[in-house]
Amino acid sequence: MIAIAERINGMFSDVKRAIKKKDPSIICDLAIKQTEAGAKFLDVNVGTAAADQCDAMQWLISVIQEVVKTPICIDSQKLDVVKAGLEVVKSEVLINSCKGEPEELDVYLPLAKKHNASLICLTINKQGVPQDVHARVEIAATIAAKAMEHDFDMTKIFIDPILLPINVDQKQPRYLFEVFNQVKYISDPPPHIVVGLSNFSQGTKERSLLNRTFLTMAIAAGLDSAVMDVLDKDLMDATICAEVILNKHIYSDLFLKAVR
Amino acid sequence: MIAIAERINGMFSDVKRAIKKKDPSIICDLAIKQTEAGAKFLDVNVGTAAADQCDAMQWLISVIQEVVKTPICIDSQKLDVVKAGLEVVKSEVLINSCKGEPEELDVYLPLAKKHNASLICLTINKQGVPQDVHARVEIAATIAAKAMEHDFDMTKIFIDPILLPINVDQKQPRYLFEVFNQVKYISDPPPHIVVGLSNFSQGTKERSLLNRTFLTMAIAAGLDSAVMDVLDKDLMDATICAEVILNKHIYSDLFLKAVR
Repeated sequence: MIAIAERINGMFSDVKRAIKKKDPSIICDLAIKQTEAGAKFLDVNVGTAAADQCDAMQWLISVIQEVVKTPICIDSQKLDVVKAGLEVVKSEVLINSCKGEPEELDVYLPLAKKHNASLICLTINKQGVPQDVHARVEIAATIAAKAMEHDFDMTKIFIDPILLPINVDQKQPRYLFEVFNQVKYISDPPPHIVVGLSNFSQGTKERSLLNRTFLTMAIAAGLDSAVMDVLDKDLMDATICAEVILNKHIYSDLFLKAVR
Repeated sequence: MIAIAERINGMFSDVKRAIKKKDPSIICDLAIKQTEAGAKFLDVNVGTAAADQCDAMQWLISVIQEVVKTPICIDSQKLDVVKAGLEVVKSEVLINSCKGEPEELDVYLPLAKKHNASLICLTINKQGVPQDVHARVEIAATIAAKAMEHDFDMTKIFIDPILLPINVDQKQPRYLFEVFNQVKYISDPPPHIVVGLSNFSQGTKERSLLNRTFLTMAIAAGLDSAVMDVLDKDLMDATICAEVILNKHIYSDLFLKAVR
């Protein structure tokens, strides 16, 4: 599981405050704790805290890079903010995200390639966010075709089929499992598949249970990455256990410790 | 999920003692608690506690039927013990189990039909317990064909593809998920698929985590029944949650309570 830690995001009030005051302590703390919890990437999203989002993104990345070597996931819908992040990033990097629209892919794929970055591509196009299996897989195929056209390493593409909250449409999880299954066969090697996990339980009362149950079922269906709360120990335990069950880590009696 | 409660089994020392002393209190207590926890069937296995296993089976069933109406699952490898149980059972009943061997099926299917019982059939034959997907599905197909031959209601057949402990062979869980997927297409309507869940974590140190993680992944792959520890609240919560995710129960904020 490529766990992308979600917590350094200006939507959270402590991070928002830290960005406004340029106070590095809470950011450093989250960077260290999330790394220790098993994050493969640290998602960095400035939210709406800063007047100058480019500056805020560069500040956050610099602060994080002073305390950990964990790769950064630059999370912004704005191209100039992504570019600002890419300027200061020192290690492996993931861009989150671009739409599965040919014109947008033609901008982001060369940019990512230039910086040796991986790229999260959403199954969203001009028609909006598809609600069924077929349209999602069709956009995933467009993304894969564009990646090939740009001679982009497919193992650096992360397809995000858009996980909606369960209280919005209860048919969606089953559709997503089917999408995970189909995307695995879209190319050889296949792209990664990623979801924004916490969105699944938005507005519900059993957030942790819903998140970890969905995630283990999703792992069984082929999901291999998620933007998630790595500080939720039960969620990380369930993730490790699911991967042991799929024989992705060797079983030992102390597998939770061993995998960590 | 057709949860078959595992606890009334002479392998457990308290139940063994109760059978030996013909002390109904612990049995009644387990029957009530497991029913309240959501058991659809109460598995009854005399183990090795009694000299006369037929008598012990009849005593257990009678004691249980005095306190709950929950259907009984008569669990014995011995035909005479099964028959003794069938004599006293008052409600819906499940027989656990017979092998997927034509000669044995020709005995058990008519017996089950006569008593309007459901029947757990193991994917075991004269060659032993198969370790791969193909041989398990082949035996499942034999079982389904025999059921049709005996004009036996397929929705009363429970195929058990034999879940081995994860510390015995780590490739098995993935094989089982594939078996679950394939057995769904063996007939229309398909038979149920059942596993003895606790066997999966036999001898491990993370029993509850392994059981519930396997179960949620298995539900995603099509499993719809398990002989399991219904008194493990985390396991039952995960089961309910997985079924809500698959849209088998309607989502509400209090879904754990609502489904129970």
